[in-house]
Amino acid sequence: MKYFEKLARKMNIEGEIDMEAKPSTLEDEEVYRCSIFSVHKKLIALPRKDGGREVIRREIVDHLPGVICLVHDLDTDSYLVEMEYRVGPGNFVFGLPAGLVERGEAPLETAKREVEEETGVRPGKIEEIEQYGAFYASEGASNDKAYLFALHVSDIENLPLRPDAGEFIKSAWVSFEELLSLPIKNASSALLVRNEEVRRRGGQIL
Amino acid sequence: MKYFEKLARKMNIEGEIDMEAKPSTLEDEEVYRCSIFSVHKKLIALPRKDGGREVIRREIVDHLPGVICLVHDLDTDSYLVEMEYRVGPGNFVFGLPAGLVERGEAPLETAKREVEEETGVRPGKIEEIEQYGAFYASEGASNDKAYLFALHVSDIENLPLRPDAGEFIKSAWVSFEELLSLPIKNASSALLVRNEEVRRRGGQIL
Repeated sequence: MKYFEKLARKMNIEGEIDMEAKPSTLEDEEVYRCSIFSVHKKLIALPRKDGGREVIRREIVDHLPGVICLVHDLDTDSYLVEMEYRVGPGNFVFGLPAGLVERGEAPLETAKREVEEETGVRPGKIEEIEQYGAFYASEGASNDKAYLFALHVSDIENLPLRPDAGEFIKSAWVSFEELLSLPIKNASSALLVRNEEVRRRGGQIL
Repeated sequence: MKYFEKLARKMNIEGEIDMEAKPSTLEDEEVYRCSIFSVHKKLIALPRKDGGREVIRREIVDHLPGVICLVHDLDTDSYLVEMEYRVGPGNFVFGLPAGLVERGEAPLETAKREVEEETGVRPGKIEEIEQYGAFYASEGASNDKAYLFALHVSDIENLPLRPDAGEFIKSAWVSFEELLSLPIKNASSALLVRNEEVRRRGGQIL
C-alpha cells in the first residue's frame, strides 16, 4: 500500500484533480431495471487540488457480483470446461463454470455450488485453493465483477445436473494443453487460465 | 478448428441441445439507450437434436467494442500506466490506456490514438506488436469486448494531452516489477499484464 501511495504521488505531479482524495456521488438515478442488472445515471464530483471540484456524468450497469472457477482434477491432471449459449458472442462457446453470488453466500461457496449445479462434479477432497480476488468486467461502464478461483481437487464424485431454468450446459474434462488451445474468450476466464499457466511454470502470481 | 469440433462432439454426447448448429434470434427489442450502450431484450431459439428448439430469454447490454493497450518502452524497459476515476469501482484506479473503437477505425489505430490522446506518448518506432485478439468483458450479459494489444516501442516523443471532455487521466512509466505489483483490477487489462509476464518468461501465448 505504501508503494501504491508513492506511485500515486509520482503520477500526481501534473493535473488539477486530487487523486488521493475521495470522489463523491452527487446524484444517482435508476433509469432501467431487469432481472440481472439495472442502469444508473450518476453525477460524480472529483476533488480538485485547489479545493474545488470537477463534476462528471457517468452511466453505469449495476450488476450482481459473480464467480468463475477453474477446476483441476489432480487424479487425472485434467480441467473442467463447459460449452453453452452466451448472449454476448451470440453463439455456443467454451468457458468455465460460473455464476452469480447469491445473497449471504461467500464467493467460494458460490464457486463450489455452481460447479456442482452446472457440471454435476463434486470433489471428494479440495487439496488446494487459489483465490485470485475479484476483477471488473468493464470498469468504465459497469460494477460487474467476478471472483476468480482455481480449485485443485481429487476423488471426484459425479452427481446429476441441476442447471437453472433456461440454462443448457455441457461439460468435459480436458488436458492442460487442450485447455490452452480452447478459444475461451471471456476475459476473466482467460485470465484464470493464464494464471494457471504461470503457476504450472513455477511462477508466482501476484 | 478441427480440434474444436472434435471436443465439441465429445461434449455433445449428452443433452438435447445441438451445439454444432446455429442459435437464432427470434425477437430483439431495444428497451433502453444512453450515450455509450443500449439494453436489448432478446428471445433466442436453441436448436434441439430432435429437430425442435428451446426458446430462452436474455437481456443484453449492447456496447461498442474497445481496445486496451500495454505500451512497453524498450529504451528504458518500462511500461505506461494510468490513473483515473472509474465508475465501476467508484474510485481512482490504476489501469492501462484504453478507449472505444470509432466508426471505420481499425482497432490497432484506436490503440495508438488513445495512447497519444490520454498520455501524450507517441512512439517514434513500433518494434513489435502483439495482437491478442478480442475478449468479452462479461459474455453472459453484454457484447462488450476489447481488442488487446502490446506495443513494444522505442524513441518516445511526448506530446500535449488531448483527453475527451470529462476525462481526467494521469500517467506514469513503471518497471515490469512495479507493473506486476499494481492493483490493476480490470480483467482484460490484468490479462494483458499476465500475457506480458508469460512472454517475458520466454513462454508462448496461445
